[in-house]
Amino acid sequence: MPLGEFELISRFFSRPSARDDVLLGVGDDAAVLRVPEGMALVAATDTLVEGRHFLPGTEPESIGHQALAVNLSDMAAMGAVPAWVLLSLSIPQSDEEWVRRFASGLYALAGRFDVALVGGDTVRGPLVVTVEVLGFVEPGKVLRRGGARPGDLLYVSGSPGEAAAGLELLKAASPALQAAHGALVRKLLYAEPRVALGRELRTCATSAMDVSDGLLGDLAKLCAASECGARIDLDGLPVSAALEAAFGRDRAERFVLQGGDDYELLFTLPPDGAEMIVRALAAHCPIHPIGVIETGRRLRGLRGGAEVTLPGDGFDHFA
Amino acid sequence: MPLGEFELISRFFSRPSARDDVLLGVGDDAAVLRVPEGMALVAATDTLVEGRHFLPGTEPESIGHQALAVNLSDMAAMGAVPAWVLLSLSIPQSDEEWVRRFASGLYALAGRFDVALVGGDTVRGPLVVTVEVLGFVEPGKVLRRGGARPGDLLYVSGSPGEAAAGLELLKAASPALQAAHGALVRKLLYAEPRVALGRELRTCATSAMDVSDGLLGDLAKLCAASECGARIDLDGLPVSAALEAAFGRDRAERFVLQGGDDYELLFTLPPDGAEMIVRALAAHCPIHPIGVIETGRRLRGLRGGAEVTLPGDGFDHFA
Repeated sequence: MPLGEFELISRFFSRPSARDDVLLGVGDDAAVLRVPEGMALVAATDTLVEGRHFLPGTEPESIGHQALAVNLSDMAAMGAVPAWVLLSLSIPQSDEEWVRRFASGLYALAGRFDVALVGGDTVRGPLVVTVEVLGFVEPGKVLRRGGARPGDLLYVSGSPGEAAAGLELLKAASPALQAAHGALVRKLLYAEPRVALGRELRTCATSAMDVSDGLLGDLAKLCAASECGARIDLDGLPVSAALEAAFGRDRAERFVLQGGDDYELLFTLPPDGAEMIVRALAAHCPIHPIGVIETGRRLRGLRGGAEVTLPGDGFDHFA
Repeated sequence: MPLGEFELISRFFSRPSARDDVLLGVGDDAAVLRVPEGMALVAATDTLVEGRHFLPGTEPESIGHQALAVNLSDMAAMGAVPAWVLLSLSIPQSDEEWVRRFASGLYALAGRFDVALVGGDTVRGPLVVTVEVLGFVEPGKVLRRGGARPGDLLYVSGSPGEAAAGLELLKAASPALQAAHGALVRKLLYAEPRVALGRELRTCATSAMDVSDGLLGDLAKLCAASECGARIDLDGLPVSAALEAAFGRDRAERFVLQGGDDYELLFTLPPDGAEMIVRALAAHCPIHPIGVIETGRRLRGLRGGAEVTLPGDGFDHFA
């Protein structure tokens, strides 16, 4: 006999937490939490839909991981400390094994960031996963999209584009290809949000956001919020060796510019002292200079010193 | 041309809020909020799935209302003040008119409770609506399910069962019947959460929860959390005139015992002084005594002084 809603919750989503700021967790009408004194509350939510944000048949551990990671990435982009999670899970049937594996992926990531699952809702319906992450930040140190100024240097963390390339490999449905480029597939399924980097950035960056819809599209949003433009140096783009090996330089570059879901951070630093800051940040993950903020409202691409046309912008869920 | 995700959000979900505790609302990677000093944060989430929680073709204003109301009801059940809302909306296509009407239903209710929409996510997918409400409460005054003690008197607010009866009428698809009993249908589509009552209860009730899965099923949960049983006096059940007129006494009583989604509160008061408290609470809404908390772990029904069998318990989304 399949498990009911309440059994599912009590069996798979009621692990005790070590956080002493959870006054009341799963099991009542709502969770009760203590935000540290002097801190502002930060709240974000993201939804993953089967067939839209992940392929049908994706391993449940990865769906649990991604549903949380995309939200932790929003916390990183604000410079916040993630603390608590609510989960709304709509699933077609009460598949105990699927839920067990989903929960194990979610809890594995939650454990690494000391985040507690404190509530949620489990319903029958199409496979749709919504996670809400709550965290906190010093009120004067919120990382925003709108703080970039002309002359600021533009950076991105890690290897954007790998996750989108991994998706392309999965869609091609060639086991040989996927095996040959397993690192890209794994990047799609288990990318790590840049929470520690985000915490560092809150004291030095003038603006930041996470790359969820593609570097160019998200840069356009950062520029719009900051009322400025930007120049991207395409020769300096971080095209990873794995990406280039799988797709060749040209396609790899497009993945870097247009792929999302790596949970990398895009940010700006004032030019003075930027070099020293970047050396310190690199203790967390690779940091790549990719351009500079400019006046005006345009995004310009430079290659070998000459201006080139940039490909179309980011992902729109209704485009 | 249909609107994209970002246009949808900026056009329909970016109304400014009068709350000065919203440090950063819709439009960045996350919202930044200020919880009043000394208050604990309260967080709840609920998901509505088309065909499961509302009928296909339900007016969008009602879906917006319900998605928020079910969460405000969770705040009420904790004795909390609701303050901020995140919305995750998965919709099959970018239907501007639908979204406009949905937003108008949600904002109408939000405005009445001075709740600000501060963030969310809009994606293409099956019609699934998840709302998260954040609020706050005095840490020592949280209303819990587990505080009822033998001898405490048991109460329910308003007219439980009417919403479930309204659903039955809608399913019957008889316009004449629906017109004759429009109040029941309206109760389903636009029930009001008992936020003010919940705030009063936090200083006097020993336990509380909202009736979302049916009075009997939810009472069983309250008793389980409180490690006690209860006796329900069936003769004193609040069977509304509208309910009895539409379905007759017997079926009406079953709606009261087993129907959910009215957002009524079930709560217990210590016997000393209960009568005076109830008179004060009745300023907010009708309050009905329906039984008493007992030792043991059983739910007993009494009718005319004799014990009778109670119908099966509440709604389980996977049963």
